Amino acid sequence: AEAVNLAEIEALGRARLDRNALEYYASGANDGHTLRANREDLATLRLRPRMLVDVSHIDTSAEVLGLPLDFPVGIAPSAFHGLAHADAERATARAAAAAGSVMTLSTFSNTPIEEVGQAAAGRLWFQLYLLRDRELSRAVIARAEASGARALVFTVDAPYLGRREANERHHFALPPHLSAPHVVSRAELAQVETDTGSQLTHYFQNLVDKAFTWNDLGWLRAQTRLPIVLKGILTAEDAELAVQHGCHVWVSNHGGRQLDTAVSAVAALPEVADAVAGRAEVYLDGGVTRGTDVLKAVALGARAVFLGRAALWGLAAGGEAGVRQTLELLRAEVRLALALSGKQNLRQVGRDLLMR
Amino acid sequence: AEAVNLAEIEALGRARLDRNALEYYASGANDGHTLRANREDLATLRLRPRMLVDVSHIDTSAEVLGLPLDFPVGIAPSAFHGLAHADAERATARAAAAAGSVMTLSTFSNTPIEEVGQAAAGRLWFQLYLLRDRELSRAVIARAEASGARALVFTVDAPYLGRREANERHHFALPPHLSAPHVVSRAELAQVETDTGSQLTHYFQNLVDKAFTWNDLGWLRAQTRLPIVLKGILTAEDAELAVQHGCHVWVSNHGGRQLDTAVSAVAALPEVADAVAGRAEVYLDGGVTRGTDVLKAVALGARAVFLGRAALWGLAAGGEAGVRQTLELLRAEVRLALALSGKQNLRQVGRDLLMR
Amino acid sequence: AEAVNLAEIEALGRARLDRNALEYYASGANDGHTLRANREDLATLRLRPRMLVDVSHIDTSAEVLGLPLDFPVGIAPSAFHGLAHADAERATARAAAAAGSVMTLSTFSNTPIEEVGQAAAGRLWFQLYLLRDRELSRAVIARAEASGARALVFTVDAPYLGRREANERHHFALPPHLSAPHVVSRAELAQVETDTGSQLTHYFQNLVDKAFTWNDLGWLRAQTRLPIVLKGILTAEDAELAVQHGCHVWVSNHGGRQLDTAVSAVAALPEVADAVAGRAEVYLDGGVTRGTDVLKAVALGARAVFLGRAALWGLAAGGEAGVRQTLELLRAEVRLALALSGKQNLRQVGRDLLMR
Amino acid sequence: AEAVNLAEIEALGRARLDRNALEYYASGANDGHTLRANREDLATLRLRPRMLVDVSHIDTSAEVLGLPLDFPVGIAPSAFHGLAHADAERATARAAAAAGSVMTLSTFSNTPIEEVGQAAAGRLWFQLYLLRDRELSRAVIARAEASGARALVFTVDAPYLGRREANERHHFALPPHLSAPHVVSRAELAQVETDTGSQLTHYFQNLVDKAFTWNDLGWLRAQTRLPIVLKGILTAEDAELAVQHGCHVWVSNHGGRQLDTAVSAVAALPEVADAVAGRAEVYLDGGVTRGTDVLKAVALGARAVFLGRAALWGLAAGGEAGVRQTLELLRAEVRLALALSGKQNLRQVGRDLLMR
Ligand SMILES: Cc1cc2nc3c(=O)[nH]c(=O)nc-3n(C[C@H](O)[C@H](O)[C@H](O)COP(=O)(O)O)c2cc1C
Ligand SMILES: Cc1cc2nc3c(=O)[nH]c(=O)nc-3n(C[C@H](O)[C@H](O)[C@H](O)COP(=O)(O)O)c2cc1C
Ligand SMILES: Cc1cc2nc3c(=O)[nH]c(=O)nc-3n(C[C@H](O)[C@H](O)[C@H](O)COP(=O)(O)O)c2cc1C
Ligand SMILES: Cc1cc2nc3c(=O)[nH]c(=O)nc-3n(C[C@H](O)[C@H](O)[C@H](O)COP(=O)(O)O)c2cc1C
Repeated sequence: AEAVNLAEIEALGRARLDRNALEYYASGANDGHTLRANREDLATLRLRPRMLVDVSHIDTSAEVLGLPLDFPVGIAPSAFHGLAHADAERATARAAAAAGSVMTLSTFSNTPIEEVGQAAAGRLWFQLYLLRDRELSRAVIARAEASGARALVFTVDAPYLGRREANERHHFALPPHLSAPHVVSRAELAQVETDTGSQLTHYFQNLVDKAFTWNDLGWLRAQTRLPIVLKGILTAEDAELAVQHGCHVWVSNHGGRQLDTAVSAVAALPEVADAVAGRAEVYLDGGVTRGTDVLKAVALGARAVFLGRAALWGLAAGGEAGVRQTLELLRAEVRLALALSGKQNLRQVGRDLLMR
Repeated sequence: AEAVNLAEIEALGRARLDRNALEYYASGANDGHTLRANREDLATLRLRPRMLVDVSHIDTSAEVLGLPLDFPVGIAPSAFHGLAHADAERATARAAAAAGSVMTLSTFSNTPIEEVGQAAAGRLWFQLYLLRDRELSRAVIARAEASGARALVFTVDAPYLGRREANERHHFALPPHLSAPHVVSRAELAQVETDTGSQLTHYFQNLVDKAFTWNDLGWLRAQTRLPIVLKGILTAEDAELAVQHGCHVWVSNHGGRQLDTAVSAVAALPEVADAVAGRAEVYLDGGVTRGTDVLKAVALGARAVFLGRAALWGLAAGGEAGVRQTLELLRAEVRLALALSGKQNLRQVGRDLLMR
Repeated sequence: AEAVNLAEIEALGRARLDRNALEYYASGANDGHTLRANREDLATLRLRPRMLVDVSHIDTSAEVLGLPLDFPVGIAPSAFHGLAHADAERATARAAAAAGSVMTLSTFSNTPIEEVGQAAAGRLWFQLYLLRDRELSRAVIARAEASGARALVFTVDAPYLGRREANERHHFALPPHLSAPHVVSRAELAQVETDTGSQLTHYFQNLVDKAFTWNDLGWLRAQTRLPIVLKGILTAEDAELAVQHGCHVWVSNHGGRQLDTAVSAVAALPEVADAVAGRAEVYLDGGVTRGTDVLKAVALGARAVFLGRAALWGLAAGGEAGVRQTLELLRAEVRLALALSGKQNLRQVGRDLLMR
Repeated sequence: AEAVNLAEIEALGRARLDRNALEYYASGANDGHTLRANREDLATLRLRPRMLVDVSHIDTSAEVLGLPLDFPVGIAPSAFHGLAHADAERATARAAAAAGSVMTLSTFSNTPIEEVGQAAAGRLWFQLYLLRDRELSRAVIARAEASGARALVFTVDAPYLGRREANERHHFALPPHLSAPHVVSRAELAQVETDTGSQLTHYFQNLVDKAFTWNDLGWLRAQTRLPIVLKGILTAEDAELAVQHGCHVWVSNHGGRQLDTAVSAVAALPEVADAVAGRAEVYLDGGVTRGTDVLKAVALGARAVFLGRAALWGLAAGGEAGVRQTLELLRAEVRLALALSGKQNLRQVGRDLLMR
């Protein structure tokens, strides 16, 4: 039977995963307050639809950093797609390309960016963790550019890994056939402690630069001609700083995986959008699973939203076809939500679409 | 045993239906947020009853577009009463007439309006979906007028059908013995795809005019001398436009079946009533199952409310008698609620009946 | 084992009752929204206790209409104590007297007021339903005065009986050994319809005067020298009228048994107390089961609170001793709550004891 | 398996206790509203983390009354650690010392303060119940000073013991091998009524001075050179008085064990901190189990927070090592929460870290 919504794809995807992978994908930090708030705060917003608008032609198209999208949804960066499917990040990239979306490849990809770049057919962004080893960072950036990435998504909310307690409890580790080719060889990885806690926590601890500040953004700027998006912004203050440093703003709390009880993404969006005031592009991720979620984010100032777990469930459920189905379902929901809201396109979606 | 409230009739009605019919009647769009909010937002409002008023005679009567009602409750249009009972829309119409109510017949009736008109004894409104085929629309309107309909209820919230996922999943379809005689022959219907998704979705998709706007209301105005009620208004902006175009306003989100997470009907009512400011009649449907619900809607500016599913449960539970019992129970509840609120009639019900 | 709180006494009392009696005592009107709100709105209020006050001597005493109470808690009028215990209203009255409380005897007592007056030892109020038969009303009032009642509690929220659906469904009726001697003989009662709905509803319907208004209060005033308390006031408007007519004000929604979704008693109290502004005495009932509930009501302007069901559970659990234990437990809770709030007596309890 | 959070330690600790001890540790007063509100109100607050701060070095250190702490968490005073572990208060003190924390020893310690003082290695405060017997109070204070206590924590919210109903129901009593050496001999204790209610309630009733007021603070001041902390302040009014009397302020509702439905600790903190306005130190206890709880309290004006039950669960789960693990886990959480909030130390934590 065809899945009728993303919740059904999630159920199918979960059923395919072993505990190690499932807990890695599903978990939020600590008690999961922010994880749940991401979804609940989106669902709770109430729409004010308008009637008797000509909605015979609905245009769901959007544009992010000059790249046209068939609808305002991209794939958020997530590590280790190989846990979900043998085709790993290649499958996700192909699905994103086919759906006219954009894939953000994680630094912790199981697949080298060169291969993913081919699959993505130009619809690729690259997510960067700033590594202590600046040479390695530089090399990774260069590979991303060479592979066709059109933006550098610099994740700023993870100087340390948040504490996903199920992963600590059950010693999450990459299975032997997988590695993280951008940052570590399989041989090095085999050295990382797995007897206590999560292997990823141990490894991440040493890898990532915790001292990088706004002042260091100049260095990053100098390494690349790509636009830089700061992923993980949750306050007006940081949004203002981002704009001042010439960066775009991705509102996110990392899917509730970093600081538990941090504000939900959608609750942070209005102050961020107000602070940015059109001077840069604003995106959001966190809890998006419905076409109406997309509209709400757009109404509050986001140019596009990104799917974290939703894409992973699709990948686990059916590889490339599963991600594709996820995106198609959501595109259809966005179109219908626009039509039933009396909007012909996303430019007509503003704050008056929301109650209060 | 006699049912003591509408919830008991609902239970009886549900027990009589097969899955195809039950899912069609019960479902809301997507996750059902708006479906539930309709009821919860009504139940949550708190009444401020007055005491020591002479309530020996309670007058529950109301008037809608000049038609006197025994109490301010009508039947909302719903498709396919034949799924509930062999007497279908005739039974509902007879019950409405007997109870001094008014029935709104759906474009998607299983029974021709001519027959329903006879059963309704003058207590009939007709609900119109504007069809792509203007000639067909015109013909349907003409038949409605000829059959004694006293108002044209133009449903404006359904250019596309909302996504009731249970219907998609289980391929809702009309059983072979039923048709929708106003818009399609049984032969045509047999052609409609039923292998994927809901047959109604497929059919509706092609039938209804999605390009109809405020500017086209002039055309509709020219087709009929009947008063026009716009059903599905949820904002002050659209209420203002409705009044400017000489229409009455029916606040509704289609029972939570169209845009999920749209504002609940009762939450939208105050801004609509304020915008209309007495220049047109205002009605509400969505979640009404108690006499106090009726009073709350009246207190916030509705002249009458309409029953969607409640009438269908009554029909399923007992045909004409079941609908009649539903209406009688509710009439008794309205009367008691008025008396216990210290109101002799509906004209005395204002916003000061509500807390806050 | 000794009960440690009123919830335990309730459990014991419930276990002693048959369905007919239990449903009569426990039920609220319709869906029970107001029934639950009475308790929840009390429990939700947050206290701001003060420290380092000399609380070595706590004075819980109060005074209602000149009658000193050991603590600010009386018994609300409730019908048919004979359903709970063979000693019926005599037991309740004795317990109230022993505890330095006051009992309000219902018009629908199973025991003649003359007997209850003896048991109450001066601690008696009488609750009046104004009957269609004015002569009967007058006779009842005269008997109340002669039996030592010190106030007339005129219940104004019940021109009709609220719809307690369990009672309707299961045809609540007085068992043959019980009657309501103030208003009906056992022979008459036997005539009352019990085949459909609640016997009480049928009987009440004809008995009570539904036309009595503020203007008729003069008549009542003329019948008695007793102070008159209007029971069932929920708005500032009616509180103002009560004061203008020389009456005291009992804030109540009849324990959620009349108009469902009416405002909770404690939510109505502030506006009533503000309107009365000290010109009359203000009481409250509805949901009181904890010493802190009592303090909250006093903080918001009540001079005393009254127990409805709590007394009935005590009576069912153990007759006079059960009611006594209920009152003693609550008195101990009030004393402790005062001490832990840093208050030596009730005069020190004001709105600053409550958060917000 | 290692516990990954305090909730797991709680589960382990609870499993080790018999009913008498478990109910004593776990219970709140009456219905537990305040007990739950302490946790819920902390969890509900939403953080606004800042990004791109150099968090390579996180300084969790704090200082309370001149004593440096490794992190802003101390142990709240709780009676009878002997119920949890044979090493009783010595174990707790050693763990606090080892973790660079501070232990507050209860007047109702099972271990003489002289022994605990040795174990605490200077990291000791003493909690005082003001006893009716002033000489005994004086002696206890003198012993505390001589044993190295660096502050006197005067508990002001317990002139009477709150009603923990499970303890009353099951007649909580100290087992024969335990006593409360600061205030009573084992022989005296054996005299205390245990046939009804809680032994502690009976004993406490006679022991503690209920007449002590702000005016008597001069007497206490004269008995000691130690700083005095008033534990149990919940209002701005009392905070102002505390400062005027030269005392520090510990915001607490005794873990929800005294006045049920009292305001939660964290809800009271802002008004207290505003009233104190930096003129004294402010602490908080109640419901702290997460690093983010600590940050929230600091953001709202607390200099440190204290653990009540969390320390007891650790002690029950593993004696000194268990308490140590509790503190270490929480220290790690505080460090991570600071880093992920973009704060290098506690001085950078202000109200702008909280939403709204
Ligand atoms: C399993 C998993 C791995 C992730 N890995 C990364 C990552 O490597 N880099 C990154 O910036 N964000 C990562 N994220 C966060 C996502 O980019 C995104 O912010 C988040 O998943 C959005 O929330 P959602 O899952 O509710 O859609 C990861 C999220 C998940 C669930
Ligand atoms: C089974 C069903 C069929 C419906 N069909 C129609 C329809 O044909 N035309 C229309 O305008 N509204 C239709 N509605 C919406 C109702 O007119 C009404 O707005 C809604 O049911 C009110 O909510 P309630 O069911 O909570 O009372 C339908 C509703 C249901 C439940
Ligand atoms: C079983 C029952 C019978 C009652 N009978 C009467 C009555 O005869 N007259 C009256 O004024 N109120 C009557 N009441 C209402 C009570 O006086 C009171 O308002 C209510 O019980 C208070 O709420 P509580 O039960 O939550 O304390 C009755 C209530 C109950 C539960
Ligand atoms: C079992 C137990 C015993 C306690 N004994 C005392 C005590 O002797 N003196 C005191 O001031 N507070 C006492 N408290 C209160 C604690 O100091 C503290 O205020 C409270 O436990 C904080 O809440 P928490 O348990 O949620 O952390 C006790 C608390 C508990 C749970």
